[in-house]
Amino acid sequence: MSSKKVEKIQSALVSWKVDGIIITNVINCRWVSGFTGSNCTLVITANEALLGTDFRYWEQAANQAPDFELIKMGKTDDLAKTIDLVEAAKVKRLGFEANHMTVSTYSSLKRQSDDVGYTKLIPLNSKLEQMRYVKSADELEKIKASARITDLVMGRVNDIVKPGMTEKAVAWELEKQIRENGADGTAFNIIVAAGLNGSMAHHRPSDYQLKEGDTIIVDMGALLDGWHSDLTRTFFLGNAPDDKFSAVYDLVHMAQKNALKHIKAGMLGTEIDYLAREVIEDAGHGEKFGHSLGHGVGLNIHEGPSFSTSFNKEIPAGAVMSVEPGVYLPDWGGVRIEDLVVVTEDGFEYLSHCPKNPIINI
Amino acid sequence: MSSKKVEKIQSALVSWKVDGIIITNVINCRWVSGFTGSNCTLVITANEALLGTDFRYWEQAANQAPDFELIKMGKTDDLAKTIDLVEAAKVKRLGFEANHMTVSTYSSLKRQSDDVGYTKLIPLNSKLEQMRYVKSADELEKIKASARITDLVMGRVNDIVKPGMTEKAVAWELEKQIRENGADGTAFNIIVAAGLNGSMAHHRPSDYQLKEGDTIIVDMGALLDGWHSDLTRTFFLGNAPDDKFSAVYDLVHMAQKNALKHIKAGMLGTEIDYLAREVIEDAGHGEKFGHSLGHGVGLNIHEGPSFSTSFNKEIPAGAVMSVEPGVYLPDWGGVRIEDLVVVTEDGFEYLSHCPKNPIINI
Repeated sequence: MSSKKVEKIQSALVSWKVDGIIITNVINCRWVSGFTGSNCTLVITANEALLGTDFRYWEQAANQAPDFELIKMGKTDDLAKTIDLVEAAKVKRLGFEANHMTVSTYSSLKRQSDDVGYTKLIPLNSKLEQMRYVKSADELEKIKASARITDLVMGRVNDIVKPGMTEKAVAWELEKQIRENGADGTAFNIIVAAGLNGSMAHHRPSDYQLKEGDTIIVDMGALLDGWHSDLTRTFFLGNAPDDKFSAVYDLVHMAQKNALKHIKAGMLGTEIDYLAREVIEDAGHGEKFGHSLGHGVGLNIHEGPSFSTSFNKEIPAGAVMSVEPGVYLPDWGGVRIEDLVVVTEDGFEYLSHCPKNPIINI
Repeated sequence: MSSKKVEKIQSALVSWKVDGIIITNVINCRWVSGFTGSNCTLVITANEALLGTDFRYWEQAANQAPDFELIKMGKTDDLAKTIDLVEAAKVKRLGFEANHMTVSTYSSLKRQSDDVGYTKLIPLNSKLEQMRYVKSADELEKIKASARITDLVMGRVNDIVKPGMTEKAVAWELEKQIRENGADGTAFNIIVAAGLNGSMAHHRPSDYQLKEGDTIIVDMGALLDGWHSDLTRTFFLGNAPDDKFSAVYDLVHMAQKNALKHIKAGMLGTEIDYLAREVIEDAGHGEKFGHSLGHGVGLNIHEGPSFSTSFNKEIPAGAVMSVEPGVYLPDWGGVRIEDLVVVTEDGFEYLSHCPKNPIINI
C-alpha cells in the first residue's frame, strides 16, 4: 500500500542521495501521512512507509494513515521513539530533517544508528517543506474553506467597528465571529492597529480607543482542519477620508494590483516582490515598505515559497501565497492590503473574495 | 548591570564546565531576561550578558531587558543571528541547549566558532528548565492571577452546562468566559469529555450532546502574561448521581487527598506519584490510571519537575505542580480531579481555590 505523497518522496530519495528519510517535523508528518496526532515519526524507504506514535494515538493513526505500517512507541522518550524505526528501516543512508531535529535527538539517533552498524545519517534541509509549496486540489479546497470564514468576518468589520472601541475589543469580537462561523481557531493572533499604532507592522491590539479619523489595519485569518487563511484590510473610521489616507491607500492598492497584473508561475520570488515594491519606491516610500510582499500559506501560516527581496527561485503553479504590500509612516500610521491567491501557469486565482470597502461610516 | 537570574546562571557556569552559555529557547530567554519578543538569543558569560534580536524588537528589548547589552541582529537568518554573539562572547567553552537547538543551527554555529578559532561548543541539556522549577514570589503571583480566572470560570460550569449542549459548545462558552475575564487566551485547548468520551484522557471536544446521567470531565486553564494555570473538575449531569459515579469519584478524590496529605519538598517525584497511585491500585484500578500524577506549570503548561513513575528526583520547595489523579473505564467514562499547588518545605499551598461541586442539577 502506498499513497501518492509517499510515492513522491520515494521517487525523490535518489536525488537526495539517501536510501530513506526519517521525518520528525510533526507538520510534515501530517502532510505526508494524514495523521493529525501530536506525536509522530515517519520513516520512508524505497519499499516501506512506517509511522511511529504512542498508545494514545494507535487507533487514530491506523484510521488516518492506513498506508503506513504502525510502529508502537513510547510517549515522550526520544530515544525509544527512534530505535525501532531505525532498525526497521534497514537503510545505509538515512536522511533526517536537520532544520528541525534537535542536537539531543540527533545524538541519540546517531548512537542507535552506530549500534545498528550500517546506517549513516545524512542531513537534509527543507525537502518536505519544498514539496508542500504546491497545493493539491483537495488542499486548495481546504484553504478556500478557511478563507471563506475569514472573508465573511472581515466583511463585517464596517458594521462592527465604532469610535470608542479599543483595538483589543475589536480583535476579540472578530475572533469570536471566526470561531462561531466554524473555524477551529484563528490562524494567528489578530492584528488591529489604529492611528499611530498602524505604523508598527508588528503591533499587538492594545487598549487604545478608536476615534474618528483613525486609519485601522485589520490582519486576520482562520484555522480550519489544520489549514490557514490570511487577509488584511485597512479602513478609515469616518465618513470622508482625508487626502493623506486616500493617497497612501491608493498607492498600496496600486502596488498590489501591479503585482497581481503580472504574476504567474515561473517568475522568481524576487521579481514578483519587485512588481509591488517598484510602485512604492517610485512614489518615494520604498523605505516605508519594510517587509516582504508575501509568503506561502498552508498547514503553517508562514511557509515557503516567498515573494521577497531574497527569494530568487521560481514560484511554481499551485503555490498559495499572500500578496500584502504595506506603507508605514511613523508619524501618521499605516496601510496594508493583503489577499490570498493561488499562482497559476498564466496568472493567479483569488482565494480571498472579501471586497475592499475602506470607509467605515459613523 | 546584572539581574538576579543572570547572576544565578553566571554562578552555575563552573559546575556546567563552560565559560558561557548561548540560550536559544525563547521561553528560557524570556525567563532569564524578561524580554517577551518572539526572536531572542542570549549569551551569558562570567562578565557579560548579551541579548540579540531583530529590528522589530530593539526598542522593546532595551525596555524589558535593561540588564543586557543589546546586539542588533537580522530577522530570520540563523547564521547572522549567532555570529556577533559568538564573537562577542570570546569564550573557550560555550554551552548550548542541545535539547532545543536544531542540527542546522548547530552546524552554522559550529562553523562560526571554528572560524573564531578558540570557541568549543558544549552540549547542555535542560539546565535552564531545571532552574525554572522553583518559582519566585513574583512568578507565583502571576500564576495565582492566572489560576484565579480559571477558578472563576470553572465555578460557573454548574450553571452553564445543560443537557443537549455539545461538548464543543461547552468548551467554547468556557473559553469565551476565560478571555472575557482578562486572560490573554486559554493555557491549552479546553477538554470537555462527557459520557463514554471521558474514558479517553486525550479526548477533544466533539459534537456529542450531553444527556442526563453523563459524567463530564472539564480540564482547562488560563494564559495570562505568559503564565499558565491548569484545573480539572469532573461533574455528574443530573440531580442524583448513581453509585458508580460516586464510587469512582470518591476513589479519585481520596487518591488526590492522600497525595496532598503527605506531599512536601524533598520527596521524590516517584514517591509523590505513588501516594495517589497506591490508593487507586488498592481499589483494583491501577491499570486505569494511565498517566502521571502531575507536572510543573509555569511559562509552559507542561514543564518540570514531575510527579510520575519515572521522575526519581527531589521536588524542591517553590515548584508549582498539578495534582491530577484519574480513573478511566472504557465502557463507562472517566473521572479526573486536578488542583494546582505550590510545594513548600512542610507541605503545600493551594493555588486553585475552586470548590468541588460535582453535581449539576437539572
